[in-house]
Amino acid sequence: MITVGIDVGSITTKAVLMNGSAWQSTLRPTGYSPRQAGREVLDELLDKAGLAQADIDYIIATGYGRITLDFADKAMTEITCHARGAHHLAPGADLVIDIGGQDSKVIFTDGYGNVTDFSMNDKCAAGTGRFLQVMAAAMGVDVSELAELARGMEPVQISSMCTVFAESEVISLLAEGVERGRIIAGIHRSVANRVVAMAERIGKGELIAFTGGVAKNEGVKEYLAKALGREIVVSPESQLAGAFGAAIIAREKLLKAR
Amino acid sequence: MITVGIDVGSITTKAVLMNGSAWQSTLRPTGYSPRQAGREVLDELLDKAGLAQADIDYIIATGYGRITLDFADKAMTEITCHARGAHHLAPGADLVIDIGGQDSKVIFTDGYGNVTDFSMNDKCAAGTGRFLQVMAAAMGVDVSELAELARGMEPVQISSMCTVFAESEVISLLAEGVERGRIIAGIHRSVANRVVAMAERIGKGELIAFTGGVAKNEGVKEYLAKALGREIVVSPESQLAGAFGAAIIAREKLLKAR
Ligand code: SF4
Repeated sequence: MITVGIDVGSITTKAVLMNGSAWQSTLRPTGYSPRQAGREVLDELLDKAGLAQADIDYIIATGYGRITLDFADKAMTEITCHARGAHHLAPGADLVIDIGGQDSKVIFTDGYGNVTDFSMNDKCAAGTGRFLQVMAAAMGVDVSELAELARGMEPVQISSMCTVFAESEVISLLAEGVERGRIIAGIHRSVANRVVAMAERIGKGELIAFTGGVAKNEGVKEYLAKALGREIVVSPESQLAGAFGAAIIAREKLLKAR
Repeated sequence: MITVGIDVGSITTKAVLMNGSAWQSTLRPTGYSPRQAGREVLDELLDKAGLAQADIDYIIATGYGRITLDFADKAMTEITCHARGAHHLAPGADLVIDIGGQDSKVIFTDGYGNVTDFSMNDKCAAGTGRFLQVMAAAMGVDVSELAELARGMEPVQISSMCTVFAESEVISLLAEGVERGRIIAGIHRSVANRVVAMAERIGKGELIAFTGGVAKNEGVKEYLAKALGREIVVSPESQLAGAFGAAIIAREKLLKAR
Protein backbone atom coordinates (compact mmCIF):
# COMPACT_ATOMS: atom_id res chain seq x y z
CA MET A 1 0.00 0.00 0.00
CA ILE A 2 1.68 3.19 -1.18
CA THR A 3 0.30 6.59 -0.26
CA VAL A 4 1.46 10.19 -0.66
CA GLY A 5 0.66 13.28 1.39
CA ILE A 6 1.38 16.71 -0.08
CA ASP A 7 1.25 19.81 2.11
CA VAL A 8 1.18 22.95 -0.02
CA GLY A 9 2.06 25.70 2.45
CA SER A 10 2.20 29.42 1.71
CA ILE A 11 6.01 29.31 1.70
CA THR A 12 7.11 25.66 1.39
CA THR A 13 5.50 22.63 -0.24
CA LYS A 14 6.29 19.34 1.48
CA ALA A 15 5.55 15.75 0.45
CA VAL A 16 5.85 12.35 2.10
CA LEU A 17 5.55 8.97 0.38
CA MET A 18 4.75 6.01 2.66
CA ASN A 19 5.33 2.45 1.59
CA GLY A 20 4.88 -0.09 4.36
CA SER A 21 7.05 1.14 7.21
CA ALA A 22 9.38 3.05 4.90
CA TRP A 23 8.92 6.65 3.94
CA GLN A 24 10.60 9.29 1.82
CA SER A 25 10.15 13.02 1.77
CA THR A 26 10.96 16.10 -0.22
CA LEU A 27 10.23 19.80 -0.09
CA ARG A 28 10.64 22.96 -2.13
CA PRO A 29 9.52 26.59 -2.13
CA THR A 30 5.87 26.97 -3.15
CA GLY A 31 6.65 30.04 -5.27
CA TYR A 32 3.92 31.55 -7.42
CA SER A 33 2.26 28.33 -8.58
CA PRO A 34 1.07 26.01 -5.78
CA ARG A 35 -0.08 23.50 -8.41
CA GLN A 36 3.35 23.34 -10.04
CA ALA A 37 5.10 23.02 -6.69
CA GLY A 38 2.77 20.13 -5.81
CA ARG A 39 3.44 18.46 -9.16
CA GLU A 40 7.19 18.85 -8.74
CA VAL A 41 7.40 17.38 -5.22
CA LEU A 42 5.34 14.40 -6.40
CA ASP A 43 7.59 13.81 -9.44
CA GLU A 44 10.67 14.10 -7.25
CA LEU A 45 9.30 11.53 -4.78
CA LEU A 46 8.41 9.12 -7.62
CA ASP A 47 11.93 9.55 -8.98
CA LYS A 48 13.52 8.87 -5.59
CA ALA A 49 11.37 5.82 -5.04
CA GLY A 50 11.70 4.56 -8.62
CA LEU A 51 7.93 4.46 -8.99
CA ALA A 52 5.35 5.65 -11.52
CA GLN A 53 2.30 7.66 -10.52
CA ALA A 54 0.12 4.61 -11.26
CA ASP A 55 1.90 2.79 -8.40
CA ILE A 56 0.50 5.23 -5.85
CA ASP A 57 -2.71 4.01 -4.26
CA TYR A 58 -3.94 7.28 -2.78
CA ILE A 59 -2.81 10.91 -2.68
CA ILE A 60 -4.10 13.43 -0.15
CA ALA A 61 -3.39 17.14 -0.54
CA THR A 62 -3.45 19.58 2.36
CA GLY A 63 -2.29 23.11 3.18
CA TYR A 64 -3.42 26.42 1.76
CA GLY A 65 -2.81 25.38 -1.88
CA ARG A 66 -4.44 21.95 -1.59
CA ILE A 67 -7.39 22.67 -3.88
CA THR A 68 -5.07 23.37 -6.82
CA LEU A 69 -3.75 19.78 -6.86
CA ASP A 70 -6.23 18.22 -9.28
CA PHE A 71 -4.17 15.03 -9.43
CA ALA A 72 -4.79 14.28 -5.73
CA ASP A 73 -7.53 11.84 -4.71
CA LYS A 74 -8.71 14.04 -1.90
CA ALA A 75 -8.05 17.40 -0.23
CA MET A 76 -8.19 17.73 3.56
CA THR A 77 -7.75 20.68 5.91
CA GLU A 78 -4.32 21.28 7.33
CA ILE A 79 -5.61 21.16 10.89
CA THR A 80 -6.75 17.54 10.50
CA CYS A 81 -3.58 16.43 8.70
CA HIS A 82 -1.33 18.36 11.01
CA ALA A 83 -2.80 16.80 14.14
CA ARG A 84 -2.53 13.31 12.69
CA GLY A 85 1.07 13.85 11.54
CA ALA A 86 2.20 15.45 14.80
CA HIS A 87 0.79 12.45 16.68
CA HIS A 88 2.89 10.18 14.47
CA LEU A 89 6.06 12.23 15.03
CA ALA A 90 5.46 12.66 18.78
CA PRO A 91 3.29 9.72 19.85
CA GLY A 92 0.98 10.51 22.73
CA ALA A 93 1.08 14.26 22.26
CA ASP A 94 -2.36 15.67 22.98
CA LEU A 95 -1.59 19.26 22.14
CA VAL A 96 0.05 20.51 18.96
CA ILE A 97 1.55 23.97 18.74
CA ASP A 98 2.47 24.94 15.22
CA ILE A 99 4.25 28.20 14.46
CA GLY A 100 4.83 28.74 10.78
CA GLY A 101 6.19 31.58 8.71
CA GLN A 102 2.85 33.36 8.44
CA ASP A 103 0.52 31.80 10.96
CA SER A 104 0.25 29.90 14.20
CA LYS A 105 -2.13 27.21 15.39
CA VAL A 106 -2.89 25.46 18.62
CA ILE A 107 -4.61 22.09 18.13
CA PHE A 108 -6.09 20.01 20.93
CA THR A 109 -6.39 16.30 20.16
CA ASP A 110 -7.72 13.20 21.83
CA GLY A 111 -4.18 11.83 22.19
CA TYR A 112 -4.68 9.66 19.09
CA GLY A 113 -4.24 12.35 16.49
CA ASN A 114 -7.90 13.35 16.18
CA VAL A 115 -8.74 17.04 16.51
CA THR A 116 -11.04 17.96 19.39
CA ASP A 117 -10.60 21.74 19.22
CA PHE A 118 -8.25 24.29 17.71
CA SER A 119 -7.45 27.93 17.50
CA MET A 120 -5.61 29.59 14.65
CA ASN A 121 -4.05 32.98 13.95
CA ASP A 122 -3.34 33.90 10.35
CA LYS A 123 -4.43 37.53 10.58
CA CYS A 124 -1.74 39.03 12.81
CA ALA A 125 2.01 38.72 12.26
CA ALA A 126 2.66 38.70 16.01
CA GLY A 127 3.26 35.17 17.30
CA THR A 128 4.35 33.88 13.88
CA GLY A 129 7.67 33.36 12.12
CA ARG A 130 7.09 36.70 10.45
CA PHE A 131 7.54 38.45 13.78
CA LEU A 132 10.95 36.79 14.16
CA GLN A 133 11.87 37.76 10.59
CA VAL A 134 11.00 41.42 11.10
CA MET A 135 12.98 41.54 14.36
CA ALA A 136 15.98 39.72 12.89
CA ALA A 137 16.04 42.24 10.03
CA ALA A 138 15.83 45.15 12.49
CA MET A 139 18.85 43.72 14.33
CA GLY A 140 20.79 42.93 11.19
CA VAL A 141 21.03 39.19 11.86
CA ASP A 142 19.62 36.11 10.16
CA VAL A 143 16.59 34.33 11.68
CA SER A 144 18.64 31.14 11.90
CA GLU A 145 21.15 32.88 14.21
CA LEU A 146 18.61 34.10 16.76
CA ALA A 147 18.51 31.08 19.07
CA GLU A 148 22.31 30.91 19.33
CA LEU A 149 22.67 34.64 20.02
CA ALA A 150 20.16 34.51 22.88
CA ARG A 151 21.42 31.35 24.56
CA GLY A 152 21.52 31.78 28.33
CA MET A 153 20.54 35.43 28.18
CA GLU A 154 18.12 37.14 30.58
CA PRO A 155 15.20 38.35 28.40
CA VAL A 156 14.46 42.06 28.27
CA GLN A 157 10.78 43.06 28.48
CA ILE A 158 9.22 43.78 25.07
CA SER A 159 5.99 45.53 26.02
CA SER A 160 4.26 45.79 22.63
CA MET A 161 2.62 42.69 21.27
CA CYS A 162 2.26 44.27 17.80
CA THR A 163 5.08 43.50 15.37
CA VAL A 164 5.24 47.11 14.19
CA PHE A 165 5.36 48.66 17.67
CA ALA A 166 7.73 45.94 18.95
CA GLU A 167 10.11 46.68 16.08
CA SER A 168 10.31 50.31 17.22
CA GLU A 169 10.92 49.13 20.78
CA VAL A 170 13.74 46.87 19.63
CA ILE A 171 15.37 49.72 17.73
CA SER A 172 15.13 51.94 20.83
CA LEU A 173 16.58 49.20 23.04
CA LEU A 174 19.52 48.79 20.67
CA ALA A 175 20.06 52.57 20.68
CA GLU A 176 20.03 52.52 24.49
CA GLY A 177 22.84 49.98 24.37
CA VAL A 178 20.88 46.99 25.72
CA GLU A 179 22.71 43.73 24.93
CA ARG A 180 21.56 42.18 21.68
CA GLY A 181 21.20 38.69 23.17
CA ARG A 182 18.88 39.97 25.87
CA ILE A 183 16.68 41.69 23.29
CA ILE A 184 16.52 38.51 21.23
CA ALA A 185 15.62 36.49 24.32
CA GLY A 186 12.79 38.99 24.90
CA ILE A 187 11.66 38.51 21.29
CA HIS A 188 11.56 34.74 21.76
CA ARG A 189 9.51 35.13 24.90
CA SER A 190 7.12 37.49 23.13
CA VAL A 191 6.41 34.94 20.39
CA ALA A 192 5.90 32.18 22.97
CA ASN A 193 3.56 34.31 25.09
CA ARG A 194 1.44 35.32 22.13
CA VAL A 195 0.89 31.67 21.21
CA VAL A 196 0.34 30.58 24.81
CA ALA A 197 -2.48 33.13 24.96
CA MET A 198 -4.15 31.15 22.16
CA ALA A 199 -3.95 27.97 24.26
CA GLU A 200 -5.56 29.33 27.39
CA ARG A 201 -7.64 26.23 27.96
CA ILE A 202 -4.34 24.42 28.25
CA GLY A 203 -5.09 22.55 31.48
CA LYS A 204 -5.68 19.29 29.74
CA GLY A 205 -2.48 19.15 27.68
CA GLU A 206 0.13 16.71 28.98
CA LEU A 207 2.61 16.24 26.15
CA ILE A 208 3.05 18.97 23.58
CA ALA A 209 4.27 18.53 20.00
CA PHE A 210 5.84 21.73 18.67
CA THR A 211 5.91 21.95 14.87
CA GLY A 212 6.36 24.45 12.05
CA GLY A 213 9.43 26.39 10.95
CA VAL A 214 9.76 28.20 14.29
CA ALA A 215 10.02 24.86 16.15
CA LYS A 216 13.70 24.86 15.12
CA ASN A 217 14.22 27.85 17.44
CA GLU A 218 15.36 26.55 20.85
CA GLY A 219 14.64 29.89 22.51
CA VAL A 220 10.96 29.98 21.58
CA LYS A 221 10.68 26.32 22.61
CA GLU A 222 12.20 27.07 26.02
CA TYR A 223 9.76 29.93 26.76
CA LEU A 224 6.79 27.86 25.60
CA ALA A 225 7.82 25.07 27.97
CA LYS A 226 8.29 27.55 30.83
CA ALA A 227 4.95 29.28 30.28
CA LEU A 228 3.03 26.03 29.91
CA GLY A 229 4.90 23.97 32.48
CA ARG A 230 4.79 20.97 30.13
CA GLU A 231 7.22 18.80 28.23
CA ILE A 232 7.60 19.87 24.61
CA VAL A 233 8.72 17.50 21.87
CA VAL A 234 10.22 18.80 18.64
CA SER A 235 10.68 16.07 16.06
CA PRO A 236 13.49 16.60 13.53
CA GLU A 237 10.78 15.99 10.91
CA SER A 238 8.31 18.43 12.42
CA GLN A 239 8.18 20.51 9.24
CA LEU A 240 6.69 17.42 7.56
CA ALA A 241 3.85 16.96 10.06
CA GLY A 242 1.09 17.98 7.63
CA ALA A 243 2.44 15.81 4.80
CA PHE A 244 2.93 12.85 7.15
CA GLY A 245 -0.61 13.23 8.43
CA ALA A 246 -1.99 13.35 4.88
CA ALA A 247 -0.08 10.19 3.88
CA ILE A 248 -1.22 8.37 7.04
CA ILE A 249 -4.86 9.39 6.66
CA ALA A 250 -4.67 8.20 3.02
CA ARG A 251 -3.54 4.83 4.29
CA GLU A 252 -6.32 4.67 6.87
CA LYS A 253 -8.87 5.48 4.16
CA LEU A 254 -7.63 2.60 2.02
CA LEU A 255 -7.72 0.21 4.97
CA LYS A 256 -11.28 1.21 5.82
CA ALA A 257 -12.37 0.76 2.19
CA ARG A 258 -11.15 -2.83 2.08
CA MET B 1 -11.04 83.67 33.77
CA ILE B 2 -7.94 82.24 32.11
CA THR B 3 -7.45 78.49 31.71
CA VAL B 4 -4.93 76.28 29.95
CA GLY B 5 -5.29 72.74 28.58
CA ILE B 6 -2.16 70.75 27.80
CA ASP B 7 -2.40 67.51 25.83
CA VAL B 8 0.84 65.55 26.08
CA GLY B 9 0.55 63.00 23.26
CA SER B 10 3.05 60.26 22.44
CA ILE B 11 4.33 62.26 19.47
CA THR B 12 3.11 65.87 19.82
CA THR B 13 2.35 68.03 22.85
CA LYS B 14 -0.39 70.59 22.29
CA ALA B 15 -1.61 73.45 24.47
CA VAL B 16 -4.52 75.89 24.35
CA LEU B 17 -4.96 79.00 26.50
CA MET B 18 -8.51 80.33 26.80
CA ASN B 19 -9.22 83.84 27.95
CA GLY B 20 -12.86 84.89 27.59
CA SER B 21 -13.78 84.10 24.00
CA ALA B 22 -10.19 84.41 22.82
CA TRP B 23 -7.76 81.52 22.61
CA GLN B 24 -4.19 80.84 21.63
CA SER B 25 -2.44 77.58 20.92
CA THR B 26 0.96 76.05 20.42
CA LEU B 27 2.46 72.64 19.83
CA ARG B 28 5.80 70.89 19.68
CA PRO B 29 7.22 67.35 19.48
CA THR B 30 6.96 65.52 22.81
CA GLY B 31 10.44 64.05 22.45
CA TYR B 32 11.96 62.09 25.30
CA SER B 33 10.70 64.23 28.18
CA PRO B 34 6.90 64.71 28.32
CA ARG B 35 7.34 66.96 31.36
CA GLN B 36 9.74 69.26 29.56
CA ALA B 37 7.52 69.42 26.47
CA GLY B 38 4.58 70.35 28.72
CA ARG B 39 6.64 73.02 30.44
CA GLU B 40 7.79 74.47 27.12
CA VAL B 41 4.34 74.73 25.53
CA LEU B 42 3.08 76.48 28.66
CA ASP B 43 5.97 78.96 28.64
CA GLU B 44 5.42 79.62 24.96
CA LEU B 45 1.73 80.32 25.52
CA LEU B 46 2.47 82.67 28.43
CA ASP B 47 4.98 84.47 26.21
CA LYS B 48 2.49 84.82 23.35
CA ALA B 49 -0.22 86.08 25.68
CA GLY B 50 2.11 88.33 27.69
CA LEU B 51 1.06 86.64 30.91
CA ALA B 52 2.78 85.13 33.95
CA GLN B 53 1.93 81.67 35.25
CA ALA B 54 0.23 83.27 38.27
CA ASP B 55 -2.32 84.81 35.87
CA ILE B 56 -3.61 81.38 34.91
CA ASP B 57 -6.60 80.30 36.98
CA TYR B 58 -6.56 76.60 36.22
CA ILE B 59 -4.45 74.15 34.19
CA ILE B 60 -5.64 70.69 33.15
CA ALA B 61 -3.23 68.15 31.71
CA THR B 62 -4.35 65.28 29.50
CA GLY B 63 -2.82 62.73 27.10
CA TYR B 64 -0.43 59.89 27.79
CA GLY B 65 2.15 62.11 29.53
CA ARG B 66 -0.36 64.03 31.68
CA ILE B 67 0.80 62.64 35.02
CA THR B 68 4.30 64.10 34.54
CA LEU B 69 2.98 67.70 34.56
CA ASP B 70 3.27 68.44 38.27
CA PHE B 71 2.50 72.13 37.66
CA ALA B 72 -1.01 71.33 36.40
CA ASP B 73 -3.99 71.66 38.77
CA LYS B 74 -5.53 68.43 37.56
CA ALA B 75 -4.95 65.54 35.17
CA MET B 76 -7.85 64.06 33.18
CA THR B 77 -8.10 61.18 30.71
CA GLU B 78 -7.74 61.99 27.06
CA ILE B 79 -11.09 60.37 26.23
CA THR B 80 -12.96 62.89 28.41
CA CYS B 81 -10.99 65.91 27.17
CA HIS B 82 -11.08 64.77 23.59
CA ALA B 83 -14.85 64.38 23.55
CA ARG B 84 -15.34 67.80 25.13
CA GLY B 85 -12.92 69.48 22.71
CA ALA B 86 -14.33 67.77 19.62
CA HIS B 87 -17.79 68.97 20.62
CA HIS B 88 -16.44 72.52 20.79
CA LEU B 89 -14.78 72.25 17.38
CA ALA B 90 -17.75 70.49 15.73
CA PRO B 91 -20.81 71.47 17.75
CA GLY B 92 -23.51 68.84 17.84
CA ALA B 93 -21.24 65.96 16.90
CA ASP B 94 -22.31 62.88 18.82
CA LEU B 95 -19.56 60.59 17.62
CA VAL B 96 -15.85 61.35 17.64
CA ILE B 97 -13.41 59.33 15.55
CA ASP B 98 -9.82 60.05 16.42
CA ILE B 99 -6.97 58.50 14.44
CA GLY B 100 -3.58 59.44 15.80
CA GLY B 101 -0.04 58.40 15.00
CA GLN B 102 -0.10 55.36 17.26
CA ASP B 103 -3.69 54.71 18.22
CA SER B 104 -7.31 55.19 17.27
CA LYS B 105 -10.43 55.84 19.31
CA VAL B 106 -14.14 55.94 18.71
CA ILE B 107 -16.00 57.98 21.32
CA PHE B 108 -19.77 58.08 21.64
CA THR B 109 -21.12 61.19 23.33
CA ASP B 110 -24.47 62.59 24.40
CA GLY B 111 -24.18 65.35 21.79
CA TYR B 112 -23.01 67.80 24.49
CA GLY B 113 -19.43 66.58 24.74
CA ASN B 114 -19.97 64.05 27.53
CA VAL B 115 -18.69 60.52 26.94
CA THR B 116 -21.30 57.77 26.98
CA ASP B 117 -19.12 54.97 25.61
CA PHE B 118 -15.86 54.49 23.78
CA SER B 119 -13.59 51.98 22.20
CA MET B 120 -9.85 52.38 21.76
CA ASN B 121 -7.07 50.61 19.91
CA ASP B 122 -3.51 51.26 21.00
CA LYS B 123 -2.26 47.69 20.67
CA CYS B 124 -2.34 47.15 16.91
CA ALA B 125 -0.74 49.43 14.33
CA ALA B 126 -3.51 48.68 11.80
CA GLY B 127 -6.07 51.48 11.67
CA THR B 128 -3.62 54.08 13.02
CA GLY B 129 -1.34 56.68 11.47
CA ARG B 130 1.47 54.18 11.85
CA PHE B 131 -0.15 51.98 9.19
CA LEU B 132 -0.09 54.92 6.78
CA GLN B 133 3.53 55.65 7.67
CA VAL B 134 4.67 52.09 7.01
CA MET B 135 2.82 52.02 3.67
CA ALA B 136 4.12 55.43 2.61
CA ALA B 137 7.67 54.26 3.34
CA ALA B 138 7.10 51.05 1.34
CA MET B 139 5.98 53.18 -1.61
CA GLY B 140 8.75 55.73 -1.26
CA VAL B 141 6.43 58.69 -0.70
CA ASP B 142 5.74 61.00 2.23
CA VAL B 143 2.61 60.49 4.34
CA SER B 144 1.55 64.05 3.53
CA GLU B 145 1.45 63.21 -0.20
CA LEU B 146 -0.83 60.18 0.10
CA ALA B 147 -4.21 61.91 -0.18
CA GLU B 148 -3.18 63.89 -3.27
CA LEU B 149 -1.73 60.81 -5.03
CA ALA B 150 -4.94 58.83 -4.51
CA ARG B 151 -7.42 61.53 -5.47
CA GLY B 152 -10.17 60.14 -7.71
CA MET B 153 -8.56 56.71 -7.92
CA GLU B 154 -10.45 53.41 -7.77
CA PRO B 155 -9.13 51.60 -4.65
CA VAL B 156 -7.42 48.24 -5.09
CA GLN B 157 -8.38 45.54 -2.58
CA ILE B 158 -5.86 45.15 0.27
CA SER B 159 -6.87 41.86 1.81
CA SER B 160 -4.64 41.76 4.91
CA MET B 161 -5.68 43.86 7.85
CA CYS B 162 -2.28 43.42 9.54
CA THR B 163 0.26 46.17 8.82
CA VAL B 164 3.05 43.65 8.26
CA PHE B 165 1.11 41.43 5.86
CA ALA B 166 -0.45 44.45 4.10
CA GLU B 167 3.03 45.89 3.51
CA SER B 168 4.00 42.69 1.69
CA GLU B 169 0.81 42.91 -0.36
CA VAL B 170 1.57 46.50 -1.31
CA ILE B 171 5.08 45.55 -2.43
CA SER B 172 3.63 42.71 -4.56
CA LEU B 173 1.02 45.02 -6.08
CA LEU B 174 3.70 47.53 -7.02
CA ALA B 175 5.79 44.72 -8.57
CA GLU B 176 2.73 43.62 -10.58
CA GLY B 177 2.54 47.15 -11.97
CA VAL B 178 -0.71 48.19 -10.27
CA GLU B 179 -1.08 51.98 -10.36
CA ARG B 180 0.32 53.64 -7.24
CA GLY B 181 -2.72 55.87 -6.73
CA ARG B 182 -5.04 52.86 -6.70
CA ILE B 183 -2.89 51.12 -4.10
CA ILE B 184 -2.89 54.23 -1.92
CA ALA B 185 -6.68 54.52 -2.25
CA GLY B 186 -6.86 50.90 -1.06
CA ILE B 187 -4.64 51.79 1.89
CA HIS B 188 -6.93 54.67 2.84
CA ARG B 189 -9.94 52.40 2.67
CA SER B 190 -8.18 49.81 4.81
CA VAL B 191 -7.53 52.33 7.61
CA ALA B 192 -11.13 53.55 7.45
CA ASN B 193 -12.57 50.03 7.54
CA ARG B 194 -10.45 49.02 10.50
CA VAL B 195 -11.75 51.99 12.50
CA VAL B 196 -15.33 51.55 11.34
CA ALA B 197 -15.16 48.00 12.76
CA MET B 198 -14.52 49.63 16.15
CA ALA B 199 -17.71 51.68 15.80
CA GLU B 200 -20.06 48.83 15.02
CA ARG B 201 -22.85 50.15 17.19
CA ILE B 202 -22.85 53.20 14.97
CA GLY B 203 -26.61 53.41 14.35
CA LYS B 204 -27.00 56.31 16.71
CA GLY B 205 -24.29 58.60 15.30
CA GLU B 206 -25.64 61.50 13.31
CA LEU B 207 -22.78 63.97 12.99
CA ILE B 208 -19.23 62.72 13.24
CA ALA B 209 -16.20 64.75 14.31
CA PHE B 210 -12.99 63.32 12.84
CA THR B 211 -9.84 64.30 14.73
CA GLY B 212 -6.19 63.32 15.14
CA GLY B 213 -3.28 63.59 12.74
CA VAL B 214 -4.91 61.30 10.16
CA ALA B 215 -7.96 63.61 9.95
CA LYS B 216 -5.87 65.72 7.58
CA ASN B 217 -6.03 62.89 5.06
CA GLU B 218 -8.98 63.51 2.71
CA GLY B 219 -8.89 59.94 1.42
CA VAL B 220 -9.38 58.30 4.81
CA LYS B 221 -12.14 60.82 5.55
CA GLU B 222 -13.93 59.96 2.32
CA TYR B 223 -13.94 56.20 3.03
CA LEU B 224 -15.08 56.76 6.61
CA ALA B 225 -18.00 58.83 5.33
CA LYS B 226 -18.85 56.20 2.71
CA ALA B 227 -18.72 53.30 5.15
CA LEU B 228 -20.71 55.10 7.83
CA GLY B 229 -23.15 56.95 5.56
CA ARG B 230 -22.82 60.03 7.76
CA GLU B 231 -21.54 63.56 7.49
CA ILE B 232 -18.02 63.95 8.82
CA VAL B 233 -16.64 67.25 10.07
CA VAL B 234 -12.91 67.90 10.23
CA SER B 235 -12.07 71.14 12.02
CA PRO B 236 -8.83 72.84 10.99
CA GLU B 237 -7.99 72.79 14.70
CA SER B 238 -8.83 69.11 15.15
CA GLN B 239 -5.32 68.29 16.34
CA LEU B 240 -6.03 70.56 19.32
CA ALA B 241 -9.24 68.77 20.38
CA GLY B 242 -7.75 67.30 23.56
CA ALA B 243 -6.11 70.56 24.62
CA PHE B 244 -9.29 72.53 23.87
CA GLY B 245 -11.33 70.07 25.89
CA ALA B 246 -8.94 70.34 28.83
CA ALA B 247 -9.05 74.16 28.77
CA ILE B 248 -12.86 74.14 28.53
CA ILE B 249 -13.32 71.61 31.34
CA ALA B 250 -10.97 73.76 33.45
CA ARG B 251 -13.25 76.70 32.87
CA GLU B 252 -16.35 74.67 33.75
CA LYS B 253 -14.68 73.55 36.99
CA LEU B 254 -13.99 77.15 37.98
CA LEU B 255 -17.56 78.18 37.18
CA LYS B 256 -18.97 75.35 39.28
CA ALA B 257 -16.70 76.24 42.20
CA ARG B 258 -18.00 79.81 42.35
S1 SF4 C 1 -1.04 43.85 16.13
FE1 SF4 C 1 0.55 44.48 14.69
S2 SF4 C 1 1.24 42.54 13.88
FE2 SF4 C 1 -0.79 42.18 14.73
S3 SF4 C 1 -2.33 42.62 13.16
FE3 SF4 C 1 -1.96 44.52 14.20
S4 SF4 C 1 -0.41 45.47 12.94
FE4 SF4 C 1 -0.31 43.33 12.49
